Amino acid sequence: MLYDLTVVQFSKMLQNLSAILDKAEAFAETKKIDPAVLLSSRLAPDQFNLTRQVQIACDTAKLAVARLAGKAESAPKHEDDETTLAELQVRIQSVVDYLSGFTPEDFAAAETQTITQPRWKEKYLTGRDFALQHAVPNIYFHVTTAYAILRHNGVEIGKKDYLGSLPYKS
Amino acid sequence: MLYDLTVVQFSKMLQNLSAILDKAEAFAETKKIDPAVLLSSRLAPDQFNLTRQVQIACDTAKLAVARLAGKAESAPKHEDDETTLAELQVRIQSVVDYLSGFTPEDFAAAETQTITQPRWKEKYLTGRDFALQHAVPNIYFHVTTAYAILRHNGVEIGKKDYLGSLPYKS
Repeated sequence: MLYDLTVVQFSKMLQNLSAILDKAEAFAETKKIDPAVLLSSRLAPDQFNLTRQVQIACDTAKLAVARLAGKAESAPKHEDDETTLAELQVRIQSVVDYLSGFTPEDFAAAETQTITQPRWKEKYLTGRDFALQHAVPNIYFHVTTAYAILRHNGVEIGKKDYLGSLPYKS
Repeated sequence: MLYDLTVVQFSKMLQNLSAILDKAEAFAETKKIDPAVLLSSRLAPDQFNLTRQVQIACDTAKLAVARLAGKAESAPKHEDDETTLAELQVRIQSVVDYLSGFTPEDFAAAETQTITQPRWKEKYLTGRDFALQHAVPNIYFHVTTAYAILRHNGVEIGKKDYLGSLPYKS
């Protein structure tokens, strides 16, 4: 379950975010707005801007999956130096590619994995608590905030862009 | 796992949302702002306002849990007539109370449950797909959007208010 909750669903959300950024790019083109205006936009003066929201969504996905699989060192490094939508798209794709290398078998011990972060000092979370209470809320937070920043700037996006397609049966 | 992912975590997020609304109330009082200004605030003209975001977060939680447990009819009814922060707090609490009545045993068949909604017509999702791809992304979407509306209005809240406390071990 943790594999589907993180690897599969995080990959889907990053692809939804990519499609949302495509709409932002088309919007900027149509309105003759410099995309940098959107990338530096934020909803409060002390909030991270759109670029940073996308970067953090990517990091949340790659680091959560890497840590849950016990392969923290395998995560691709990113320098946080993206300045264009195209560069953010490359970053998103690199994380989607990275996630695609994981299998459910890699998550055999994920629930009981000990997850630490430098700023937690000596403390840790179990893989299960980390996934449910930290990684999942965080990725949706940053994707939704990126979406909200674009919505606030007039980009025509809706809940369907955020959720992506659903596997309806009949 | 679906029980923890929905019942436990949705209840936690609603309580975090309640604490965020408490901060909004204190902010309005200090700044001598009518709380109704915050409640009717939104980030785009065609976006649901704060009141509606809170109502939908509540409905997402109660209906997802009710459906996954095969007890759709047991969910408490709400008239969407809240006009104050205090009334929204009552609504949140009523859903938290409702969720507290569920046990892991109620979720024994949740993954294979057939989930339908009137607007999906004849189509359905399995309980597993519904939880992972619909209910979970949706509740975080509406809690984050409520948070973003308040952040945009100057309420001093941060990621910790959104995530709530984490069960660190040492």
